Amino acid sequence: MINVAILGYGTVGAGVYKVLDMNRETIARRVGEELYVKYVLDLRDFPGDPAQEVLTHNYNDILTDSDVMIVVETMGGLNPAYKFTKLALEAGKSVCTSNKELVAEKGLELRDIAKANHVNYLFEASCGGGIPIIHALDNALTADEIDAVTGILNGTTNYILTQMAEENEEFSEALKGAQKKGYAELHPEADIEGWDACRKIAILSSLAYGKYVSYKDVFTEGIKDIDTVDIAYAKSMGFKIKLLASSRRTEEGAWLMVAPKLVDGKNMLYHVNGVLNAVYVHGNALGDCILYGSGAGSLPTASAVAGDVISAARNHGRPIPSDWSDDALPLIPIDDVRNVFFVRFAGTADEAEAAFGKIEKVMIPEAEGEFGFFTTEMTEKEFRDAAEKSGKVIKAIRRA
Amino acid sequence: MINVAILGYGTVGAGVYKVLDMNRETIARRVGEELYVKYVLDLRDFPGDPAQEVLTHNYNDILTDSDVMIVVETMGGLNPAYKFTKLALEAGKSVCTSNKELVAEKGLELRDIAKANHVNYLFEASCGGGIPIIHALDNALTADEIDAVTGILNGTTNYILTQMAEENEEFSEALKGAQKKGYAELHPEADIEGWDACRKIAILSSLAYGKYVSYKDVFTEGIKDIDTVDIAYAKSMGFKIKLLASSRRTEEGAWLMVAPKLVDGKNMLYHVNGVLNAVYVHGNALGDCILYGSGAGSLPTASAVAGDVISAARNHGRPIPSDWSDDALPLIPIDDVRNVFFVRFAGTADEAEAAFGKIEKVMIPEAEGEFGFFTTEMTEKEFRDAAEKSGKVIKAIRRA
Repeated sequence: MINVAILGYGTVGAGVYKVLDMNRETIARRVGEELYVKYVLDLRDFPGDPAQEVLTHNYNDILTDSDVMIVVETMGGLNPAYKFTKLALEAGKSVCTSNKELVAEKGLELRDIAKANHVNYLFEASCGGGIPIIHALDNALTADEIDAVTGILNGTTNYILTQMAEENEEFSEALKGAQKKGYAELHPEADIEGWDACRKIAILSSLAYGKYVSYKDVFTEGIKDIDTVDIAYAKSMGFKIKLLASSRRTEEGAWLMVAPKLVDGKNMLYHVNGVLNAVYVHGNALGDCILYGSGAGSLPTASAVAGDVISAARNHGRPIPSDWSDDALPLIPIDDVRNVFFVRFAGTADEAEAAFGKIEKVMIPEAEGEFGFFTTEMTEKEFRDAAEKSGKVIKAIRRA
Repeated sequence: MINVAILGYGTVGAGVYKVLDMNRETIARRVGEELYVKYVLDLRDFPGDPAQEVLTHNYNDILTDSDVMIVVETMGGLNPAYKFTKLALEAGKSVCTSNKELVAEKGLELRDIAKANHVNYLFEASCGGGIPIIHALDNALTADEIDAVTGILNGTTNYILTQMAEENEEFSEALKGAQKKGYAELHPEADIEGWDACRKIAILSSLAYGKYVSYKDVFTEGIKDIDTVDIAYAKSMGFKIKLLASSRRTEEGAWLMVAPKLVDGKNMLYHVNGVLNAVYVHGNALGDCILYGSGAGSLPTASAVAGDVISAARNHGRPIPSDWSDDALPLIPIDDVRNVFFVRFAGTADEAEAAFGKIEKVMIPEAEGEFGFFTTEMTEKEFRDAAEKSGKVIKAIRRA
């Protein structure tokens, strides 16, 4: 019998409790022993809920119980999750988490502490919910030099963009709908400003490249400025706008970027709609590989956490190898990153060509007094300079 | 230093040699030690090729060399691959393979022999080339009751069906093109009759459900009867025809089937074109998950084999747990499996309705003297009986 404690009985924590219960037999067969939730830690009480019987309000009950082999941290936020995780690892307990803020901020340190204590710090659920991308990077795609990772890593923004494209909703309307359905929080900044996707691409890139990337160094643009005219332009040209979290490793250096981009129908990410997530990985032997699934939600996320619990149980006393080093990934300045831009322009074709060179106008009935065009590939700085020179750029969206 | 031997220097074997060489540094960092190919076994010589220096024609050189920790079996076929694998495992060497025939036929026995000798028998590359589906089933999706697996698991047939749909080629023309491009073999039966996909879905289902399925029990239909009229019907209704290898586990029992099916645009498998592969998995917590990538080709397949070599190196002396038991998965008779059929019919609407109940006719200019319709959901037996009763069914294709 392997004893587990769950810290935080919110959406994900309760999901983990449920998954471990409903799939008890299968999990026992796969682990070779039964898993038992001995404690649930929460400040609240849950009368009538089965978790109430194992509920504690005192973390010390868990920390000092040497029977507890695995701690599930589904509290979210930096504190006290950081302190609790550190204490658990130092006490020789493995920790499995869905907490992307903590992993992005302190993951490397916590993984080192785990290693030093011969236990595991696992966080499959921190990126892409149920999608097994971290397992893939850590265990399966290990023979490759990965040189590109791009994901639709935030379900809320993908839902909003899908509603705007398919139901012709305004951004604010789509956001309200997402909040009503429980897909977006009351304070949705972390999603719509791109911060959530930013943390996730930093984590995935660190694992993929075996070099450390701080989420603070990721160029991040959200979707709150995307309007129905942008969507109409995109649609007219066979594109969709998706919030892509991307990183590339090239000869010249690496870069990371979260931004809304135009994606065409040949790209599998075009077909990822609603709250679903997907991650594209390119390896020098593997070629293209995409993992697709539920990026959020109680049970899909819990499935990933519970999968980690099983890995922790199977690997008790043996840190699972991982290619996350504290060696920093050298990044090129974002000014030097090259992109193709779709420009909405309020001047004449001559004015546009004076600043951007030869263009082909795109005109749609939804956009009066303006037209659109694609630039050639240019650096961010070249684009900014040209835009400034012309003085007539309304807005630009990068092409994927 | 970890020594590796490669058995069979064909497309995949040479690919493994190349991947281990070109990604030498990264792999050494991930393993913690350098990997070195000490032997390549082949009947042929390869003058000028770097493998020539480590070439042997005698398997005993490898078997009796206690320095060799890992054997890569990329010979294909049942013999002598089976004998060589067994001997290697019994000699305490882990074996990594891309050989789906052998895994489907003897995988369970070989995994047991590996376990008994505290080594690993790993076969990520046997299903879906570079797609990390076996790692996902064995290591990440372990907290779920998986109840459905469906894949486009054969690149040759997917290429042929894509050419037929996009370039309006006849089957025989598309097959010739596939042979010319090296996607199809001179004797393409294993692909176009569905046998290759059949072996792969048997392997994946065994791992997903933790119960043994013999590929011999998989209902298998190939694509050689698909004609341009079928494709035209499909297109007119917004479908594509894909060779799907599927299995389901339901309350009533489980079934496996390889057959061309009509797939609509909401299904991600619709968008999997050319030689690409994809596998859909459904779990009771996870929900839908799809893994997509290169299902064949020298380097993608080698990427998967080399990833297994790294796993074997990291897990030396420790069999990686896997949920493949010799407990057989009880299957329901194929006659009882329920499907919706698209029927091409050479009679009148009244004759069709007398046999199949209310129908809606689909007519296309490409099909003279016939029309099409979808049946309601019915068992295979009910369908056969109705088809026989009417006497006018030209052909039927199941809907996914």
